[in-house]
Amino acid sequence: MSRPTRLSGVLSPVITPFDEQLAPDAKRLARQCHWLLSQDTGLAVFGTNSEANSLSTDEKIELLDSLVADGVDPYRMMPGTGCCALTDTVKLTRHAVELGCAGVLMLPPFYYKEVSDDGLFRSYAEVIERIGSDALQIYLYHIPPISNVSLSLDLVERLITAYPDNLAGIKDSSGDWTNTESMLERGWDGFQVFAGSESFLLRVMRAGGAGCISATANVNPAAINDLYCNWQADNAGEKQQALDELRSIVQSFPMIPALKAIVADYSGDSAWSRVRPPLVELDNKQVASLTQQLRAAGFAMPGLDVSTS
Amino acid sequence: MSRPTRLSGVLSPVITPFDEQLAPDAKRLARQCHWLLSQDTGLAVFGTNSEANSLSTDEKIELLDSLVADGVDPYRMMPGTGCCALTDTVKLTRHAVELGCAGVLMLPPFYYKEVSDDGLFRSYAEVIERIGSDALQIYLYHIPPISNVSLSLDLVERLITAYPDNLAGIKDSSGDWTNTESMLERGWDGFQVFAGSESFLLRVMRAGGAGCISATANVNPAAINDLYCNWQADNAGEKQQALDELRSIVQSFPMIPALKAIVADYSGDSAWSRVRPPLVELDNKQVASLTQQLRAAGFAMPGLDVSTS
Repeated sequence: MSRPTRLSGVLSPVITPFDEQLAPDAKRLARQCHWLLSQDTGLAVFGTNSEANSLSTDEKIELLDSLVADGVDPYRMMPGTGCCALTDTVKLTRHAVELGCAGVLMLPPFYYKEVSDDGLFRSYAEVIERIGSDALQIYLYHIPPISNVSLSLDLVERLITAYPDNLAGIKDSSGDWTNTESMLERGWDGFQVFAGSESFLLRVMRAGGAGCISATANVNPAAINDLYCNWQADNAGEKQQALDELRSIVQSFPMIPALKAIVADYSGDSAWSRVRPPLVELDNKQVASLTQQLRAAGFAMPGLDVSTS
Repeated sequence: MSRPTRLSGVLSPVITPFDEQLAPDAKRLARQCHWLLSQDTGLAVFGTNSEANSLSTDEKIELLDSLVADGVDPYRMMPGTGCCALTDTVKLTRHAVELGCAGVLMLPPFYYKEVSDDGLFRSYAEVIERIGSDALQIYLYHIPPISNVSLSLDLVERLITAYPDNLAGIKDSSGDWTNTESMLERGWDGFQVFAGSESFLLRVMRAGGAGCISATANVNPAAINDLYCNWQADNAGEKQQALDELRSIVQSFPMIPALKAIVADYSGDSAWSRVRPPLVELDNKQVASLTQQLRAAGFAMPGLDVSTS
């Protein structure tokens, strides 16, 4: 069997809408996914910015089923499936593979700290062995600022060596360009290195990377994708600068509530602003400041679905 | 309705045995719980040292049911029920309350970092409101070295003020005596402050605390309980010192695999040594060093069940 095509380009950790009871709202999520696809942006549902770790495994499985039933192409999806519990990770990952998802983005178990590379290797190996399918395409999720569990270069290489057919790539959200660059320099065959945000997009493309998986792709997908497609053009540096300027506005607020406030504002659908605890929504003053800055910057979300239910 | 009696004394975050497939072994766990109860030690099952965050919610629910079916008194139990996902925490906590557990030990949601007190308050409030029963007795679990999410004194006070019938106490595993002392000085009525290990047992009792919930109570329960019962005796300082000496041997190894290795060694039941990833078992050299030191110190585990299946 030939190896499945691996993902590249721009993906969004799709924000998760909640209803009044704080239950996930599958219909709104599907609409948002269709919009993102229309902007040539892939779907890293259940990422950090999706509040995925505020959802139960069963909630995530139901959402995945709903998305596919709603016509979202699983081959554009890279759901986050790494949980604290081995059994949750196996259950959710297996479901994603069975649905035909192109890949999964897999956090290491993140409760226990200062665990060894041997223990982390064993975590991933158990999942791979239990699922036992080359259709399983794992993108490692390295995000030490939040998970507080780091995936060392040596661990990544050991996993690739042991399971070359399953280790498809990595999202590097360390914020440390040297780490991303080091991975690219190792030249792992067919291993897709994604930057953790569009801040590193031009650099990662120039160094041979695969693209980026970025929070702000929830609201600014077309412009990010434009740089991805045209990174070799003369004006790529200007495009990077424009992305950076937009991002600097958004990230001066708490990221997840800010993304939701933007979608709520530009769609006219206030339900989008809800977050699950332990997060809190932006307050009115923050929303006013954020939207004023975005409008002053000429920011738009063309084609965004503005239906409210 | 009068308020339920709140827990005090010594509790053990009971280590969780696994079978060859790394599935939880309910029968071995029940045997260990009965032994701990015979040593006057309560059951904080599903604590950090239980590898609880390597178990799914459904696995924890099944284990709780098995323990109660096996005759373990739920009124001696304080299961850990705080998960990342609100819905998991509600499901597991509700189950524990329905089974009649005396209390639950509740981590805050621990994936998202730098969350606000407002967000953490809302997390606990949602759980309390959804369960809606005074039978719910929450012991907060403050363990910033591992959860990386801190429960401030002001947050604790705000929760007690809002939900005095549900906020039963706290386990302070900050390792910061000043924090424990500050909570006791606030004099919250009926709020049980437990030290996070026996290292602080004498100090917490002298300052008006409720006892301790300690990893090493898995292996040294009788001696820890002896100090709890006799903290006002003249020789309490010597007892504390003896506990400290034993603990210093154990904690010079990775704690959870060390506890399991000790139970495996003293019961003759090697199955006890298994851990779930991301943890790894002690290697043979570590086991030899640990058991040699314990025997040299005259350590024993009287009454431990030595049946092996």
